[in-house]
Amino acid sequence: MSIDIEDLAARIAAGERRALARGITLVESTRADHRAAAEALLDRLADPSRMALRVGLSGTPGVGKSSVIEALGLRLTGAGHRVAVLAVDPSSSRSGGSILGDKTRMERLSREARAFIRPSPAAAQLGGVARRTREAMMLCEAAGFDVVIVETVGVGQSETLVSRMTDVFLLLLAPAGGDELQGVKRGIMEIADLVLVNKADGDLAAQALRTRADYAGALRLMRARDTDPEGIPAARTISALTGDGLSEAWAEVERLAAWRRESGVTARRRAAQAGQWFEDELRAGIEALLSSDRALAARLDELRARVEAGHAAPGAAAREALDPLMRALDGAAESP
Amino acid sequence: MSIDIEDLAARIAAGERRALARGITLVESTRADHRAAAEALLDRLADPSRMALRVGLSGTPGVGKSSVIEALGLRLTGAGHRVAVLAVDPSSSRSGGSILGDKTRMERLSREARAFIRPSPAAAQLGGVARRTREAMMLCEAAGFDVVIVETVGVGQSETLVSRMTDVFLLLLAPAGGDELQGVKRGIMEIADLVLVNKADGDLAAQALRTRADYAGALRLMRARDTDPEGIPAARTISALTGDGLSEAWAEVERLAAWRRESGVTARRRAAQAGQWFEDELRAGIEALLSSDRALAARLDELRARVEAGHAAPGAAAREALDPLMRALDGAAESP
Repeated sequence: MSIDIEDLAARIAAGERRALARGITLVESTRADHRAAAEALLDRLADPSRMALRVGLSGTPGVGKSSVIEALGLRLTGAGHRVAVLAVDPSSSRSGGSILGDKTRMERLSREARAFIRPSPAAAQLGGVARRTREAMMLCEAAGFDVVIVETVGVGQSETLVSRMTDVFLLLLAPAGGDELQGVKRGIMEIADLVLVNKADGDLAAQALRTRADYAGALRLMRARDTDPEGIPAARTISALTGDGLSEAWAEVERLAAWRRESGVTARRRAAQAGQWFEDELRAGIEALLSSDRALAARLDELRARVEAGHAAPGAAAREALDPLMRALDGAAESP
Repeated sequence: MSIDIEDLAARIAAGERRALARGITLVESTRADHRAAAEALLDRLADPSRMALRVGLSGTPGVGKSSVIEALGLRLTGAGHRVAVLAVDPSSSRSGGSILGDKTRMERLSREARAFIRPSPAAAQLGGVARRTREAMMLCEAAGFDVVIVETVGVGQSETLVSRMTDVFLLLLAPAGGDELQGVKRGIMEIADLVLVNKADGDLAAQALRTRADYAGALRLMRARDTDPEGIPAARTISALTGDGLSEAWAEVERLAAWRRESGVTARRRAAQAGQWFEDELRAGIEALLSSDRALAARLDELRARVEAGHAAPGAAAREALDPLMRALDGAAESP
C-alpha cells in the first residue's frame, strides 16, 4: 500500500475508526517500509496531552473477561466515554488467537460508535506483541479514546507486560474454594490493584463472596500500602450478567487512577515506561543494524560458527564481532 | 587482583579446585577489567573435547534437592566420576540465597576430592545468572569434571534457563495427592526428561508410588515421543535417605544422554545453545558500547528525555539515536 502518513495521521487525530484500524495494521506489519511509515506516524501523533486511562485486565480462560469488558464498556460508552479494547495473547501464534479472536464475543459493544475493539495480532514473540500493543494503544489515544482496556489471558509473562503499559491493573477471578487461592501466581497478585470476582449471581453468589474475602486478605499482605490510597488493593464481587458491582468497581478504578495522577505516580510511571520502550526499540534497532550491514553480518556468521563448534567462547567472540563497530564510532568521534 | 590468565588457565586445566574457584569468582565479577580477563580465560580454555554430561535438576523448596544431589554425587564420585554442582537461584538477590547457600547442606559431598560445589551468586537479573552459570559450567568442564549438575529452585523462568544449558533435565517431586498434579506448571513438565519422586521410604513409600503413576501418564502425553528413546520421559521413585532407586535413575539419565549423543541430538542442541549465548553476549556488548561512547550516550540521554516527556515516539527516537552508528558503519565500509 502507498501511504500518505500526513493524511492518515490527520484522520486518526480526527477520531476516524477506519483510519485507526489502518494505522494499527501498519504498526503490526513487519515489512521494513511499513515499519518506517509506522514510526513516522507514531512520531507525528505523539501528544502527551492525549492520554487515556489505561486499564489492564487479566484472567484465565472461562472467567468471563469478554462479558465483563462488554458490560463495563457499554456503561462507559453510555456515560460518554470513548472506549478502546486491545488484547495481548502471547499464545495466539499457536492457538490461532483464543481471546478476542471473535469480535462477536462482544457483539453489542462492537456495534457502539464510541467503542473500538481490536483482537490480538498473531506474533511469534512476546516482545513483538508488546511493541504492537503499546503502539496500538498510542494510536487509540491519538484518536481520542479516553479509556483503553488491554485484555490478557493469565500466563504470567503477559500480565507483567500489560501491567507495564497500563495505569491500573485488574485481575478477574471466578468464584472458587479457598484452597484454590494458591493457583493464582504470587507475581500476579502482587501487580493487581483490584481483584474482581465475577459470576457473583445466582447459585455462585455466596461462593463469590467467600472468594472475595479470601483474596482481600492476601492482597493486603502482598502490597506495600504506602504507595496507594486507603483501601487499595481491594477485592470486589461483580456480575457481568446482572451488572451488580460494575459501577462500584469502576468507581474504585477511577479513584485509584485519580489518586495516582494527583500524587505524581502516573507521570513518573509513564515516563519510566516510555524510557523502557525507548530502550527496547534501541535494542531492536541495533539488531536490525547488525544483520543489515553485510560485512558485519558475514563476520558475525563466521564467529557464530566458531562458537557453535566450541572453538571460541561466546563472550570473547562477541567482543571480536563488535570491534569494527567500536572502531567506526571512534573514527566518527575524531572526524570534524 | 592482578591476574595471570595463562597461569590460571593452566592450573584450571590441570584440575586444581582452588584455581577453578578463583576462575568462577572472576566470571562472576562485574568489574570491566575482570570481565575482559574472564573472557580471555574462557576463550583460552574453550575445548570442545572436554564436555561434561550436563544435568539440570529442579524442584520446589523442601523436596530434598540437596539430599538427592549429595546421595547421587557420592555414588558418582565413588564410581570415579568428577562431579561439579552449580546452582541457579534467581531469588538469591532478595532471599540471600535459599539454595546451596550453605555448603554444609552437602557436607559429605563437599569433602570429596572429586566433587566441587559452588553456590549461586547473588545477582540482580536472570540474564546475569545465566551468563555466570554457563561460564562456571565451562570452567568446570575445562577443569576435567565429567558430570555437572545445575540445581535450580522451581520458579518457572529459571527452569527454562537451566534446561537450555544442560543435556538432561530432571524434575524432583515429593509424594503428593493426585489433585496436586496441577501444581506443577505445564511448561516444566514439558521440559522434564525424567520425573523423580523423592522420599519413597517409610510411611510415604505408597504415596510416592501413586504420585509416580500420576506423573508417568501426564509426562507421556506432553512429550513428542519420536525425539526420545523408548520409555522416555519417565517417572521413577527414589529415596535419598535409603538410596533406593538412585542407581536406576542415574542409569536412565545415562541411557538418555547416550541416545542423544549417538543420534546427534546433543551436538545439534549444544551448537544451538552456544549460538544463543553468542547472541546474548553480542547484545550485552552492544549495550556496553552504547553507554561507553560519550557523544552517543549524551545523544541517547537527550532523546530518552524527549520520549519520557511524551514528545517523541520511542521507535522514531531509537532510529534517530542509531543514525550516527549507521553512518559510521557506512564510512568504515567505504574506507580502504
